[in-house]
Amino acid sequence: MGIRIGILGYGNLGRGVECAIRQNPDMELLAVFTRRNPEDVKILTETAQVCRVSEAGQWKDRIDVLIICGGSATDLPKQTPEYAKMFHVVDSFDTHARIPEHFAAVDAAAKEAGKTALISVGWDPGMFSLNRMYANAILPEGKDYTFWGRGVSQGHSDAIRRIEGVKDAKQYTIPVETALSAVRKGETPELTTRQKHTRECFVVLEEGADAAKVEQEIKTMPNYFADYDTTVHFISEEELKKNHSGIPHGGFVLRSGVTGWEKEHRHLIEYSLKLDSNPEFTSSVIAAYARAAYRLACEGQTGCKTVFDIPPAYLSAKSGEELRASML
Amino acid sequence: MGIRIGILGYGNLGRGVECAIRQNPDMELLAVFTRRNPEDVKILTETAQVCRVSEAGQWKDRIDVLIICGGSATDLPKQTPEYAKMFHVVDSFDTHARIPEHFAAVDAAAKEAGKTALISVGWDPGMFSLNRMYANAILPEGKDYTFWGRGVSQGHSDAIRRIEGVKDAKQYTIPVETALSAVRKGETPELTTRQKHTRECFVVLEEGADAAKVEQEIKTMPNYFADYDTTVHFISEEELKKNHSGIPHGGFVLRSGVTGWEKEHRHLIEYSLKLDSNPEFTSSVIAAYARAAYRLACEGQTGCKTVFDIPPAYLSAKSGEELRASML
Repeated sequence: MGIRIGILGYGNLGRGVECAIRQNPDMELLAVFTRRNPEDVKILTETAQVCRVSEAGQWKDRIDVLIICGGSATDLPKQTPEYAKMFHVVDSFDTHARIPEHFAAVDAAAKEAGKTALISVGWDPGMFSLNRMYANAILPEGKDYTFWGRGVSQGHSDAIRRIEGVKDAKQYTIPVETALSAVRKGETPELTTRQKHTRECFVVLEEGADAAKVEQEIKTMPNYFADYDTTVHFISEEELKKNHSGIPHGGFVLRSGVTGWEKEHRHLIEYSLKLDSNPEFTSSVIAAYARAAYRLACEGQTGCKTVFDIPPAYLSAKSGEELRASML
Repeated sequence: MGIRIGILGYGNLGRGVECAIRQNPDMELLAVFTRRNPEDVKILTETAQVCRVSEAGQWKDRIDVLIICGGSATDLPKQTPEYAKMFHVVDSFDTHARIPEHFAAVDAAAKEAGKTALISVGWDPGMFSLNRMYANAILPEGKDYTFWGRGVSQGHSDAIRRIEGVKDAKQYTIPVETALSAVRKGETPELTTRQKHTRECFVVLEEGADAAKVEQEIKTMPNYFADYDTTVHFISEEELKKNHSGIPHGGFVLRSGVTGWEKEHRHLIEYSLKLDSNPEFTSSVIAAYARAAYRLACEGQTGCKTVFDIPPAYLSAKSGEELRASML
């Protein structure tokens, strides 16, 4: 029997975790916990059960790691500390500015219960953070750049959907190619928000809506669009469904730094992701870190950890010997 | 006082480590140990001493981490186990096929002496290995690609220099752009040696040497050139010095993999390096891992480790709190 996994919350992320577990033979999905009526939730894994969230406590000795797939705005700040009292947990909390406070709450809960908790697992925060950290440790004198996209921003798409007259919308964040090239060439430009990313919106209007007014409202929306060069395309509902139903994403983390007694040599470290499915990739990272959480738990380590604290080998199903022989 | 570092061996790598230590205020170079006459070795750090290798033992309580900068062919297999009996050590052993045996020898010595040893630190093995490992753990179903270059291969340059009639030479390893593009597009080609890299040689002939014969000898040299498309340029000694005295290198690690219940989504993870100075970048990686070795040693961890075993945060001078607040 493999590592016994539970999933709390069955949206895009929860379903992605379910798919990822299928690709890892040392893991097994036992149960999905949902706030909906379990009978209305159809999952893919025939051998797993769908249960009410309120029943989760009954599973605390049958599940090794609970993967919490709620949203960062309101779900995770409550759920992760709460469930860390009963389970070893992993979440993908992604509100960067609130990580210290989330860490503190989860750490206190997990330590008191003697559980292992891993927060903010995914690609940003997650793999991008790791690459920023490694690159900074290697090149202490240098400059960091993170570009996101081309990919769908759920938050920006939602913001457009809230505008009166908008029936549906998808927003793509796109890195500015000339900025990326400049960094790759070893230049270290100071880049404004506008110089780093553009935003492209595909909008379906309600019947009779005023396109010019909607476009104006999008382009001037503070925080979301006002600081960017934004393009708005009005398309039909069919076209949106046909060409914009995916959730691709990705991005680039670069560090440009110098070495040498006189700082005479320049180096560029670049990490990039090109993802057909943002939630499925995030889920795949989470699955690997669930393995790490299980191992930490077996060692008796307790409290909250992040990707910075996890020895890379803990993510792999292979042994140390195998890894050294095949990948080092 | 910072982490007290010793360097054993003062070639390109040793000098690179010296430069890297200067960029890390929490480290201090105390001594360089050399097989040459110490009076003939001029180092850059005014506050450090140059000593005979035979005197190293006298420094065992004054140095926290000894960085061993010998060659992998004959130096490190002897030196690392030997000095791991007296010091916490870091090396950059890079003969991939012999890592398991080197690991075993160093592990035994370090464990017996209660020391921490970190081997095969650099970029390949090192950062490239880490990226292969992370990407494999995240995307268990996929295909790996590593491309090296554009960069100087010391081994290939040396092989050319051994040919009769050759006065000096530099060899560049170059990734084949079309192969790299295919992988980036999400194709998963099977690539032969010839399809992945080309080799470009800049050769200075001895007076009266037969250029055609030298070119033929290079292009047909087994292991080194016979399996590659190789270009040979004959140039003057001045031109070699002017245009080819640097030691640039770099490369690309890619993993193309699939996720989803029906494996319907494709993802590409790419890590790349573009380095003005191969030895200085390697040294910068080593310096960061020397910090990690010191921390492991302070925790009382003994035996041999590799980059796979080290929690990323151990590489950074920043605290966990700082890292979570600034980089996660």
